Amino acid sequence: MSKLWSPAVRELTPYVPGEQPRERLIKLNTNENPYPPSPGVEKVLREFSADHLRLYPDPTSTALRQALARTLDTEVERVFVGNGSDEVLALAFQAFFRQQKPLAIPDISYSFYPVYCRMYGIDSQVHPLDERWQVNLEALSADSGGVVFANPNAPTGHGHGREAIAALLDKVTDRVVLVDEAYVDFGGESAVPLVERYPNLLVTGTFSKSRSLAGLRLGYAVGSPELIEGMVRVKDSFNSYPVDALASAIGIAALEDEDYFNATRQAVMATRERARLRLTELGFQVLPSQTNFLLATHSDQDVAQLFVELRERGILVRHFNTEALRDYLRITVGTDDEMDSLIEVLTELLP
Amino acid sequence: MSKLWSPAVRELTPYVPGEQPRERLIKLNTNENPYPPSPGVEKVLREFSADHLRLYPDPTSTALRQALARTLDTEVERVFVGNGSDEVLALAFQAFFRQQKPLAIPDISYSFYPVYCRMYGIDSQVHPLDERWQVNLEALSADSGGVVFANPNAPTGHGHGREAIAALLDKVTDRVVLVDEAYVDFGGESAVPLVERYPNLLVTGTFSKSRSLAGLRLGYAVGSPELIEGMVRVKDSFNSYPVDALASAIGIAALEDEDYFNATRQAVMATRERARLRLTELGFQVLPSQTNFLLATHSDQDVAQLFVELRERGILVRHFNTEALRDYLRITVGTDDEMDSLIEVLTELLP
Repeated sequence: MSKLWSPAVRELTPYVPGEQPRERLIKLNTNENPYPPSPGVEKVLREFSADHLRLYPDPTSTALRQALARTLDTEVERVFVGNGSDEVLALAFQAFFRQQKPLAIPDISYSFYPVYCRMYGIDSQVHPLDERWQVNLEALSADSGGVVFANPNAPTGHGHGREAIAALLDKVTDRVVLVDEAYVDFGGESAVPLVERYPNLLVTGTFSKSRSLAGLRLGYAVGSPELIEGMVRVKDSFNSYPVDALASAIGIAALEDEDYFNATRQAVMATRERARLRLTELGFQVLPSQTNFLLATHSDQDVAQLFVELRERGILVRHFNTEALRDYLRITVGTDDEMDSLIEVLTELLP
Repeated sequence: MSKLWSPAVRELTPYVPGEQPRERLIKLNTNENPYPPSPGVEKVLREFSADHLRLYPDPTSTALRQALARTLDTEVERVFVGNGSDEVLALAFQAFFRQQKPLAIPDISYSFYPVYCRMYGIDSQVHPLDERWQVNLEALSADSGGVVFANPNAPTGHGHGREAIAALLDKVTDRVVLVDEAYVDFGGESAVPLVERYPNLLVTGTFSKSRSLAGLRLGYAVGSPELIEGMVRVKDSFNSYPVDALASAIGIAALEDEDYFNATRQAVMATRERARLRLTELGFQVLPSQTNFLLATHSDQDVAQLFVELRERGILVRHFNTEALRDYLRITVGTDDEMDSLIEVLTELLP
C-alpha cells in the first residue's frame, strides 16, 4: 500500500485472469478457441501496409462497426466497439451503473463484474442461481440500479432463451439490462434481435472465443442509439482511439468469413458433446453447456488435487478456489485430439 | 441526455480528437510522423502467425516492457504499458489523482487532462503559463493532490530541461508528479533518468509520434515500482489485457531499430527548423519547438480564416477555438515536400 495511491486504489481487489503458461501445455484453462482465426486474418497480416500505422485510426471505428452491423443484422448506430469485451464492459459499468441503487448480478457469473463494481464505487445486489444452477431472472428483476449477467452464463454454461430475456425486459424498463454474450455462438440464443424493442437492453460480445482472436482484443456492444451515445461519451473521456487500425482490419476479415465461423463453432460444439459423454463415463457430473467449456465435478474425487495432477502431466484446466466452485473444474473445449489426451490422462489418474 | 445514463455521464465533456479525413489531404493536424515505422514493423506483419491471435496475450506484457526497459535504460519493474498513452494517462489519473486536494495542471497543455478530471471527479487547480508561454514549474509546486504537465508542452512546443524537473521534484515529494513526454524525442530532455531518485515521479511516453505508430495504440509509463504497482491494480480492475499480441510484437520491433528511430527523428527536427524559418519569412511569429509541430500566429492575418483556406487547398492543420489559442495555428511537421507545399500555398494566400 503506497501513500501515493488514490485512497480508492487501496480498496481494489483486481481480477485475476487464467494463467498464460510459457511451457508447451494442452491449454484448456481460458476458453480460447482451438482453431486458428479465419484464413482472411492471415491475408490481412500479409497485406497490411505498415505505413498505415503511421496515422491515427478512425476514432469512431466506423468500418468495423459497419461490418458488425451487417453480421448481427442491425444498424451501425447501434454498435459500439472496444479493446476487448472487458473494456466494453468496464465502459458500460461507468456509463450506466453508477446509480443510487445497487446493481443486480448473479452470485456465480463472470468474476470481473464485482471487480468493476469496486473499481467504480458501485454497490451490488447479489442474487443466487436457482436450484438448477441457472441465472434467476425473476430475482434479477427486483428493484435495482441495473442488471448484468452472462448468457450463456460462465462458468456454468447454461443459457436462457430469447423469450426469457424478453420477459425480463418486459418487467425491467427503467434501467439498463446488460446481457454479456461472450459465449453465445456455441449454442446460445442471442438477445441482439431484441435491441430494437427494448431501448434499455445492451448486449455485449467478443471476438476472443468464436472468432479465435483472444490475442487481438476486440469486443462490442449492441443497443439503442441512446445507450451507444452514453458509451461513446465515456470512451471519449477515457481514450479516443481504443481500437487500433490493424485490429479493425483483422476483425472485419474475421466477420466476413461466415462459412469458416460456422464450421469451427460447429466443430467445437461437436467435440464438447463428445467430451461431455466421455467425462460422464469416467464418473464426472458435467453440466449441460451452450459454451466452449464444460463445468465438471466428481463425487469421489478431490478436483483440486486432480487439477494439480493434470498440470503435472501437461494439461492445464481451471479451478476456481471459491466456496461455490471448489468442487468443480472448468475445462475449455479443445480439439478432439486434445480432449482425447485429457480423457486418457484422467483415465490413468482415476482409480 | 438519457435517464438510463449514470448521472455523472451527463456532466462529461468528452475530448475531441483532430479530424481523420477520408480525402487525400496533406495532413498536418494530429502530429503524426511523416515517415513510416521501422522496416522491422513490416517484417513482423509479414511473419506474424495468425494462429498466435487465438490465445490471450501475456497480461503482464513482459516482453514489450523488457524491450522498453532496455531502450530507456531502466528496469522492467519500472515500466507499465497500455493501449496508447491516452489510456496510460487515464489509468494514472485514477491511480494517483483521486485525492482530497485538487490536481495542479497548466492552463495550456494537453486538452485531455481536464477531460480526465471531469471523468474521474478530480478537481483541478489551473496555473497559467509564464510570460514566455512556458509551463510555470514554480506555480505547479504549490500544495495540491498531484501535478501533471506535458514536457515538451503541447501545443506550445517548449520543454524544460531535466534539472528544472529535478528542482520541482525536490520541492514536491508527497504526491505524484506526472511528466507526459509524448513529444520528447524531437529535442526534449527526458526525465526518465530521474525515476530512481524520485519515487513520486511518473513519466509517460508514446509510440504514436517518434515511432510512427499512432495507428497501433501503444503507450507507456516509467516510475518507481510502487507507482507501477498502483497502475497495475487499476489496470487489472479494468481490462486484464489492454495490449494485444500483435501490438506487442510490433512495438518490440520498432524499439529494436535505434538507427532508423534516430534518422527519422533527426529528419523531422531538420524539417521543423527549415519550416520555422520560412514561416517567419512569411511574417508568422513561430514559437521555438522541441516537438514535431510548430505553433504559429500572424499579426496581420485571421488564422481561423487561413485554416479554412488551407483546408480548401488540401492542407489540414489544427486550429483550437479557445480564447488562449484562437490566434494560433498548430502545424505538424511533415516531410520537406509537404512543408514546401504548405509554404507555397501560404505564399499565395498571404497578401
